[in-house]
Amino acid sequence: MPLMITNGRLVTAASDCVADIFCEDQQITAIGGNLPAPPETTVIDAAGKLVFPGFIDPHVHIHLPFMGTFAKDDHRSASLAALAGGTTTYMEMICPARDEQPIEAFELWRDKARADSCCDYSFHMGVTRFDADAQRQLRSIVADHGVTSFKVFLAYKGAFGVMDDELYGVCKLAAELGVTVTAHCENADLVALRQAELVAAGKVGPEWHEPSRPVPVEAEGVHHFCTFLQLTGARGYIVHTSCRDAVEIALSFQSRGVDVAIETVIPYLVLDDTHTHRPDFEGAKYVMSPPLRSKEHQAYLWDALAAGHIATVATDHAPFDFDAQKRMGDPAAGKDFTLIPNGIPSIEDRVHLLYTHGPAAGRLSLHRFVAAASTNAAVQFNLKRKGDIAPGYDADLVIFDPDYRGVISAETHRMAVDYSGFEGMPIIGRTEATILRGRVVDFDEPAPGLMIDRR
Amino acid sequence: MPLMITNGRLVTAASDCVADIFCEDQQITAIGGNLPAPPETTVIDAAGKLVFPGFIDPHVHIHLPFMGTFAKDDHRSASLAALAGGTTTYMEMICPARDEQPIEAFELWRDKARADSCCDYSFHMGVTRFDADAQRQLRSIVADHGVTSFKVFLAYKGAFGVMDDELYGVCKLAAELGVTVTAHCENADLVALRQAELVAAGKVGPEWHEPSRPVPVEAEGVHHFCTFLQLTGARGYIVHTSCRDAVEIALSFQSRGVDVAIETVIPYLVLDDTHTHRPDFEGAKYVMSPPLRSKEHQAYLWDALAAGHIATVATDHAPFDFDAQKRMGDPAAGKDFTLIPNGIPSIEDRVHLLYTHGPAAGRLSLHRFVAAASTNAAVQFNLKRKGDIAPGYDADLVIFDPDYRGVISAETHRMAVDYSGFEGMPIIGRTEATILRGRVVDFDEPAPGLMIDRR
Amino acid sequence: MPLMITNGRLVTAASDCVADIFCEDQQITAIGGNLPAPPETTVIDAAGKLVFPGFIDPHVHIHLPFMGTFAKDDHRSASLAALAGGTTTYMEMICPARDEQPIEAFELWRDKARADSCCDYSFHMGVTRFDADAQRQLRSIVADHGVTSFKVFLAYKGAFGVMDDELYGVCKLAAELGVTVTAHCENADLVALRQAELVAAGKVGPEWHEPSRPVPVEAEGVHHFCTFLQLTGARGYIVHTSCRDAVEIALSFQSRGVDVAIETVIPYLVLDDTHTHRPDFEGAKYVMSPPLRSKEHQAYLWDALAAGHIATVATDHAPFDFDAQKRMGDPAAGKDFTLIPNGIPSIEDRVHLLYTHGPAAGRLSLHRFVAAASTNAAVQFNLKRKGDIAPGYDADLVIFDPDYRGVISAETHRMAVDYSGFEGMPIIGRTEATILRGRVVDFDEPAPGLMIDRR
Amino acid sequence: MPLMITNGRLVTAASDCVADIFCEDQQITAIGGNLPAPPETTVIDAAGKLVFPGFIDPHVHIHLPFMGTFAKDDHRSASLAALAGGTTTYMEMICPARDEQPIEAFELWRDKARADSCCDYSFHMGVTRFDADAQRQLRSIVADHGVTSFKVFLAYKGAFGVMDDELYGVCKLAAELGVTVTAHCENADLVALRQAELVAAGKVGPEWHEPSRPVPVEAEGVHHFCTFLQLTGARGYIVHTSCRDAVEIALSFQSRGVDVAIETVIPYLVLDDTHTHRPDFEGAKYVMSPPLRSKEHQAYLWDALAAGHIATVATDHAPFDFDAQKRMGDPAAGKDFTLIPNGIPSIEDRVHLLYTHGPAAGRLSLHRFVAAASTNAAVQFNLKRKGDIAPGYDADLVIFDPDYRGVISAETHRMAVDYSGFEGMPIIGRTEATILRGRVVDFDEPAPGLMIDRR
Repeated sequence: MPLMITNGRLVTAASDCVADIFCEDQQITAIGGNLPAPPETTVIDAAGKLVFPGFIDPHVHIHLPFMGTFAKDDHRSASLAALAGGTTTYMEMICPARDEQPIEAFELWRDKARADSCCDYSFHMGVTRFDADAQRQLRSIVADHGVTSFKVFLAYKGAFGVMDDELYGVCKLAAELGVTVTAHCENADLVALRQAELVAAGKVGPEWHEPSRPVPVEAEGVHHFCTFLQLTGARGYIVHTSCRDAVEIALSFQSRGVDVAIETVIPYLVLDDTHTHRPDFEGAKYVMSPPLRSKEHQAYLWDALAAGHIATVATDHAPFDFDAQKRMGDPAAGKDFTLIPNGIPSIEDRVHLLYTHGPAAGRLSLHRFVAAASTNAAVQFNLKRKGDIAPGYDADLVIFDPDYRGVISAETHRMAVDYSGFEGMPIIGRTEATILRGRVVDFDEPAPGLMIDRR
Repeated sequence: MPLMITNGRLVTAASDCVADIFCEDQQITAIGGNLPAPPETTVIDAAGKLVFPGFIDPHVHIHLPFMGTFAKDDHRSASLAALAGGTTTYMEMICPARDEQPIEAFELWRDKARADSCCDYSFHMGVTRFDADAQRQLRSIVADHGVTSFKVFLAYKGAFGVMDDELYGVCKLAAELGVTVTAHCENADLVALRQAELVAAGKVGPEWHEPSRPVPVEAEGVHHFCTFLQLTGARGYIVHTSCRDAVEIALSFQSRGVDVAIETVIPYLVLDDTHTHRPDFEGAKYVMSPPLRSKEHQAYLWDALAAGHIATVATDHAPFDFDAQKRMGDPAAGKDFTLIPNGIPSIEDRVHLLYTHGPAAGRLSLHRFVAAASTNAAVQFNLKRKGDIAPGYDADLVIFDPDYRGVISAETHRMAVDYSGFEGMPIIGRTEATILRGRVVDFDEPAPGLMIDRR
Repeated sequence: MPLMITNGRLVTAASDCVADIFCEDQQITAIGGNLPAPPETTVIDAAGKLVFPGFIDPHVHIHLPFMGTFAKDDHRSASLAALAGGTTTYMEMICPARDEQPIEAFELWRDKARADSCCDYSFHMGVTRFDADAQRQLRSIVADHGVTSFKVFLAYKGAFGVMDDELYGVCKLAAELGVTVTAHCENADLVALRQAELVAAGKVGPEWHEPSRPVPVEAEGVHHFCTFLQLTGARGYIVHTSCRDAVEIALSFQSRGVDVAIETVIPYLVLDDTHTHRPDFEGAKYVMSPPLRSKEHQAYLWDALAAGHIATVATDHAPFDFDAQKRMGDPAAGKDFTLIPNGIPSIEDRVHLLYTHGPAAGRLSLHRFVAAASTNAAVQFNLKRKGDIAPGYDADLVIFDPDYRGVISAETHRMAVDYSGFEGMPIIGRTEATILRGRVVDFDEPAPGLMIDRR
Repeated sequence: MPLMITNGRLVTAASDCVADIFCEDQQITAIGGNLPAPPETTVIDAAGKLVFPGFIDPHVHIHLPFMGTFAKDDHRSASLAALAGGTTTYMEMICPARDEQPIEAFELWRDKARADSCCDYSFHMGVTRFDADAQRQLRSIVADHGVTSFKVFLAYKGAFGVMDDELYGVCKLAAELGVTVTAHCENADLVALRQAELVAAGKVGPEWHEPSRPVPVEAEGVHHFCTFLQLTGARGYIVHTSCRDAVEIALSFQSRGVDVAIETVIPYLVLDDTHTHRPDFEGAKYVMSPPLRSKEHQAYLWDALAAGHIATVATDHAPFDFDAQKRMGDPAAGKDFTLIPNGIPSIEDRVHLLYTHGPAAGRLSLHRFVAAASTNAAVQFNLKRKGDIAPGYDADLVIFDPDYRGVISAETHRMAVDYSGFEGMPIIGRTEATILRGRVVDFDEPAPGLMIDRR
């Protein structure tokens, strides 16, 4: 059934106009003034509202085995939370163990998304081993399944991380195939050594998480990764950049012709390391990696985002409960911070927080906001027909009420976790309706999402 | 009369799709698939062609008194050349003498454009004196005439340049009014001193132009200007950046939260300082300021453009004849390089050269190409309804044939100058038709352009 | 009468040994173990003491007319204070008004020093005007009087500062003569503008002094000055560097081959901008220019000093009384911070504070301490036979007791000012005896100092 | 028998004077004017000569098993060559295999030096494995043998390199013991991968050595190493730095308070990568690692040395014959560049080349020359009583004739190799006599050198 959105203020990365949007067969088929509406068309009057292209979260975890437990969201809860927040597409990290077959891991992750996701989705294919067999399977995942990005963790002997010869191989393969290498840039061996030191010294609370992986560890990882991009000619993307030092290194490589884009995530933009010092183990709610940094770094990230040095704002959504899961690292029970599952659930809140602290606070233009939360990810990862309002594009749209005022709370959120890292934080503006491929999302009877072919 | 462009591949800064565009009453009124065409509609079949938003040149000189002569183009020749090259909007520098009244200068420049320009246009209001009276007139030019950017030259005692207290005042006024300060960042006193030294040493040929204003002079200007932006909170824009040092300084200020955008111009991207060493005074054709730099700087500029560090590619179009004008500085006639009128005419060639050496050479994505040559200037300078293909936007469109192969030559160009700095250079792709506010440009009977109200 | 110092631990920039020093005819004539002492020799047993080369303060003001008043010290009080603190040589700034004759200013300053100084001394010749006549006089001051360094203030229309064409001329002359250009790197026009703004806004207390000349103003000055050095090939020296940004810019020019050395002063190393917020106008005691910065900058300066990036630690000694003079800018009397005479008297305390917070705190090696407080200034400014313990060198020596513990106080200091900016600060180690040209300083009957010929 | 050197111009890092030096019992016992000479004193008249402290080469290889062969010099030939060139002390790298016992390696290397060296010497203890047992032995080597520096190679799985956890352990141990970690900063895994690629592509000549380990590989190593220093608080020293990128990274860490010093070696200052392109396999003479770089990097290194950013100039002396050894990698015999033994013999030429291209060319002051070639190494590595001319210091002295003019040639050199990388290069100035611990070196009957206790 056709859908028409009339009189909204359409804001994209490049334009700002008042117009109608006509959607049919899942796509935008016309944009214009006073478009005619065939009889059965559903018409939504968006006068006084902003209409954005559907937002894209290029970095989430949903199926996430971690330290013997699993993240709480499944694709149904996560995707509905995403849609409630205006996100219509997400990209999930596939994290195989080193001894798993890549193709099996891909199928496992894909099948879970296929079964439950109400958002559209794609994946970054985690590479945790790189031998001839793995390479063959990776080629198939790119060529046959349209997953055109890899994900690596740096140097972690025996776990997710890849050794330098493997990293070099991954980058060369990516350069050959024209796909993007995304990287978690912390030297994991350094982190493990420092964790051991701190725990041995009785420094076991969540406030010691940041000192176990301080800024130089991340900066070193970024320098290392960018060197491999430079030497191989591969295209790179640095996930969840948390600090000035890391961004500045990446910029210096861009200036030498290295094609590398920088992602930050919403927690770094609105939270800081003081949160991990909250008493009564509350700090554990704010444990993620790289860790929250000081306010000086946060201010820098906003400047870098406004200047366009940072391309995208994602979430690194990784939803663990506070009571049953984060408490696995509670010193009161004889445990330590290294056992706290990492993550600050935010798939639902990203767009609202970015709008509130960005355009509504005068820190970002609306164009930059849309670019960072949607368009740039679509272009970077070849999410075809996503990230803009254009004919033939998927009719993924957000009708946004800029006049809304509210507060974030775990009591009202849709994510399947028992706390919010943003509890009580006010928001300005809200997603009033989310449209996925031409259908207004009905949270009671949502339609299934589709996997995006990025070839 | 309505216009319809069918089946073109529409490429903007953010999207890429095949669709029809319907234009009426000078604007784009609908974009979509299989749009209906009312009876009298002119229909252009753009199958197999690229369709871009009209290109914008944010930095040209047309009415240009310089060293006792005048640039050769008038608005008619310049605008037709621009349109032939796909540029539908330009922004001209108003360059009053220090003792002229700003409002009178504005009216003089505006009236010349109004009389003859077939492109749409706006201005940067040159500020060469800043006292209470000048300030009053500048406020009027912004508020009453919608010219919302200033242009300054740095420190040139007694000529175009402003002294530091004036520069501070200009920046404060700009911050108050929310307008952009554009700046030519060379310390003109240093240049004058070095020119005198070189000439006294008998170094009088065009090859001495670059050494008279070397990289550090430009870098110093950029550092100086950015400091003033930082202290006043004004928004800035650096015109014609020619070298690595200058770009890197501007980036470092962006990282400290200074809102400053960087422009380069097409000559720096395809020519270099070896051109000024050509024999028989041919080097004079390549004299502009800042001067053409070494190939290392050129390579850097391409990297910076691909990374998005450089926002815009303009021309600094300044059309002087070789024979009668550039020769005013010919050593053979007892003159020297300081008397060569500055400029490399390029308003007609900018888009073709950027496409040829950018997307066609694999150095720039099509999105970045459109952003740099059109969209970013529109957003930066609030050229409303320009720079994108969207409903309600002016129907400024370029139908571009990517399969064309040709060569640049003064014999065929429309600019009113007797040489081309790009003589014999091959181009890939060409503007096949240019549409300005819904009308296909007829070079025999062109319609007048309009001044853009940027308030 | 000969002097012998026996058994001291001699520490220089390059060595560390226990030996005797024999001095005769004002010079060190022998250094060795178990040197023979002729009958009438005065022998000082320095066992357990450190023996350093006499310390050099390359940046002081003594005769200092400023805002209608004069600094309180004359050469007698200042030099005795210096000697008490281990400083045997100082370099005074000659600050002529723009309409004074350089040679007359030189003679005025020299005659005052000659009449009263008990330290050895030289000068930096301030250049506040640079025309043909001034140039002729400057050549004479270098050639006939052995003052081989110039001092400039940047861009201050109509006062001490030089315009850019003058600065260029000064640098070229310095390059020709092989002398050093020292520079106060703040853009004085910017400071004047900001002072006016702050005062107009009622921001009149001493805590507004720093915001009137913030870090970017100093950084800009350094960038500007270094550009002139780069273009002319002159050798430069940046006085009283207060912040990271300024040091980093100077380092980047060093990396491009510019010969520029960096000085900081002792107040920046032990005080910070919080001091200027002290109540009851106490903040005025801490007003100097560039101003005291935040603790982050202070920490950086220590790192830069330890790394050798900063060459010298001077004082910028400028002694004004709190009651009668600093109060000229007291808001309680309807005045403002711009009227507070600038300066934090420290000629007596420099060495003690640097030792206490440097070697005694583990922040500097003893070698670096001697280099920064003595040797580097001697080498930089060609203070012949100064700055080291070597035969033929002037017998300027400090016998230093590392076991002393004490406290700084205006009640006990020799400087002719009524307060100390370091009141109550503990010190570790103290100058026990100061020897100038072979004579132990007798504070009751001091011998006159001599002007150093630096040709 | 006492030795007296009279009337020489003594130049040290800190002073410049004419004086006599009296030496007895291996040490300098007195320095002064007109020193008395006991009857049996040997007197050398050094009028018109420069007298320097004995030069120190902090980075040499003599006992060097490499790819199945051994470097040609033994300690006798190497030390005599060193002494002929003015070097009185060298520090040799101990390079145990990963499965060797550190203490056994130490004893092997020490015994060889003890048997034959005519220079004084110390070692850097190579750490190629770091487990509990190795750590225990390293502690003993520091505490019992006074070898207070370690040497590491970065990340080379299974060979000399240490893994990151080992590197972290080495740095922590060094921080605890107060010793210096010296590092070869190339990521050896990257080098191995690139070598394999090049050889597979038929790129086998010596000119492919540089591309197999390009600038980013070294820069990455420096960034990596400095990060470990920053995290552990260890003191570091980067050996044989060849390029701008590496130096700039180290400087940036110094600015953050990391105690890291930078060494370059003489080949980088006078040779460049064009030498490896010489025909007839001549390029193999110039194969060392890191490789010779382009002239731009060389010019930068001189600037960095003049500015004091680079602390020391060593050799990385590694003497392999051209005919029998370098030819092991000759493509004409079916081999490739990876089989060429690395090294450009220069222990004899370092001081002469540095003087010729430094002070004699106006690029370095004499003070900086002495500091870089002697004093800084002594201070950095606690080579007690070395590196300066001071009482109680070892009487290691060089009498240098600045008026000598000559040419370097393998025909006349003392090193036991069949070629010189500097063949035919002119030199200005020469070591006329070398004095080691008070004895003029007699090249026919040289006295044995001693190992220096650096505790």
